[in-house]
Amino acid sequence: MSETEPEVNRQFLLAARPKGLVKESDFEYRESPLPEIGPGEVLIRTTRISLDPSMRGQMENRADYVAALQIGDVMRAGGTGTVTQSNHPDLPVGATVYGTLGMQDYAVSDGKNPPVRPYDASVEPEQALGVLGNTGMTAYFGLLDLGEPKSGDTVVISGAAGATGSVAGQIAKIKGCKVIGMAGTDEKCKWLTEELGFDEAINYKTEDVAARLDALCPDGINIYFDNVGGEILDICLERIAMNARVVICGGISRYNATGPIPGPKNYFNLVFRRARMEGFIVIDYVSRFPEAIAEMKAWIDQGQIKTNATVIDGFENLPKALIKLFEGANTGKMMVNPT
Amino acid sequence: MSETEPEVNRQFLLAARPKGLVKESDFEYRESPLPEIGPGEVLIRTTRISLDPSMRGQMENRADYVAALQIGDVMRAGGTGTVTQSNHPDLPVGATVYGTLGMQDYAVSDGKNPPVRPYDASVEPEQALGVLGNTGMTAYFGLLDLGEPKSGDTVVISGAAGATGSVAGQIAKIKGCKVIGMAGTDEKCKWLTEELGFDEAINYKTEDVAARLDALCPDGINIYFDNVGGEILDICLERIAMNARVVICGGISRYNATGPIPGPKNYFNLVFRRARMEGFIVIDYVSRFPEAIAEMKAWIDQGQIKTNATVIDGFENLPKALIKLFEGANTGKMMVNPT
Repeated sequence: MSETEPEVNRQFLLAARPKGLVKESDFEYRESPLPEIGPGEVLIRTTRISLDPSMRGQMENRADYVAALQIGDVMRAGGTGTVTQSNHPDLPVGATVYGTLGMQDYAVSDGKNPPVRPYDASVEPEQALGVLGNTGMTAYFGLLDLGEPKSGDTVVISGAAGATGSVAGQIAKIKGCKVIGMAGTDEKCKWLTEELGFDEAINYKTEDVAARLDALCPDGINIYFDNVGGEILDICLERIAMNARVVICGGISRYNATGPIPGPKNYFNLVFRRARMEGFIVIDYVSRFPEAIAEMKAWIDQGQIKTNATVIDGFENLPKALIKLFEGANTGKMMVNPT
Repeated sequence: MSETEPEVNRQFLLAARPKGLVKESDFEYRESPLPEIGPGEVLIRTTRISLDPSMRGQMENRADYVAALQIGDVMRAGGTGTVTQSNHPDLPVGATVYGTLGMQDYAVSDGKNPPVRPYDASVEPEQALGVLGNTGMTAYFGLLDLGEPKSGDTVVISGAAGATGSVAGQIAKIKGCKVIGMAGTDEKCKWLTEELGFDEAINYKTEDVAARLDALCPDGINIYFDNVGGEILDICLERIAMNARVVICGGISRYNATGPIPGPKNYFNLVFRRARMEGFIVIDYVSRFPEAIAEMKAWIDQGQIKTNATVIDGFENLPKALIKLFEGANTGKMMVNPT
């Protein structure tokens, strides 16, 4: 292992709070010495680094559900890794772990700070980070706990070809729903319907979303699983059915906006349709991850949930990969293989 | 009775869909012959006619939860009345009833169309129409079912001196909450704190609402009971606590707007604070009215709920009374005594 081990710990630091679109210059590359571990700590070599829409809010310090990220801090990021040195009885050398490892080759953890959890070494890092990681758990709890799908419900999902949306849609299919996904390219739409079993897909960049939803949802939308916010949220609010559940999972259309962002002008349909709009953060469900992971694994084994990942090679491509995520270049989970 | 009985049935019809503020010319006065009742029907003489913010949406046909109101129809309105002729076994002559009697002296009903329910003749019409009628029921189910108040919660109520808000706040006090009301005059604010027992009141027309809420809600808002929408909804969304419940009861600031109305730009706090925003219509709870009325009566008897009504005399003043409601001229339930 020492042959392939870099001499240094490559890192990307937060260099500037982004204004508008994230730029490469918002990050600073640094090479640090390999960290030394203390009592109870482990050294983890990252094997995959996750890019997620929520990173934008953390760069700007808008996400008050996590500790503030300061300029000069290592950029926070989810990732998988392998323990290479250990002073922790539950995390021996060779253990595969998943957690907030940051944009760096090596992370030090005592298991809790940053939080890391071991995962079965037979699981691919792509799955550990995606369908069995935070994005998959986000889909699971967002759809099942907040969305409360019932057989026959019409479920509309925006950002449907993303890591969370693609899993949420497949869970909705398992629950007997009619599932309509929105994505930004014809290829993604084809993947949703031909590979993942979505009933319909709408290319929101080339099609008239409102007209297609009118045609596809004659009885209204029972669950709208929103990853994008903006105009599409409004179009869907206009079409919610009685007692609809609007699950606010993300708002990627907002994250890179400059200046004030309009709110959903059709929110008052929540009254006319006796509906609710609800937000959540997956970290609140950590104690229930084991049951969800077990169920998700079973669905994967039975071929009921398929996944995809966009893996970009090269540590140096981390900032670019985040920018590409906001451009919608990924299908499924976006990650970097830092080798 | 025949002495005081008018020879004609005075009515106000919907003459025009309002644009912007409701105007008197949106109504047409008509004198019709006294209606004749058929088998199973009753004739009801109205004793009070209710003015409610939701009437604006019905005039414009925006409220899709009730049948459309056409130009030339008798304006729909809640009211109390007394049965003066009866072919209905459960609604004998002399029965006091409550229902959608319309802006008219006499209504015909078979009990279901329009829906009318008898109420105890010992109850004042003001209470039958207010705290024990739709507005009180709206407060009861909105606060308790959607708001889920817990002792120690901070509850903020807009339109707090209105028929619904004033009752919702008192129920929240019964449940052990800290209650802050917003109203548009110092007199109303004084009524809220000195008569109804609200902890604090904010005059939203003269005070800096955001600054006062910051001072009064250091741990955030657990329940926001919204009757107004608009900027105040946004100010409150900015200050919701974790797992907050935003109960969308009304949006009076919207009802008379011309042109597009901005949505709540801070809706995304629903995610950061894992909160929900939910709408409802009280007619969905009709089957549970008896239990709620019983509990409300007990609270009134114990002096825990006090009410007020603004009663305007004279049938001819109905359009003016509705306009005054939107100007905030009422404290508590707004109604007309048509005599």
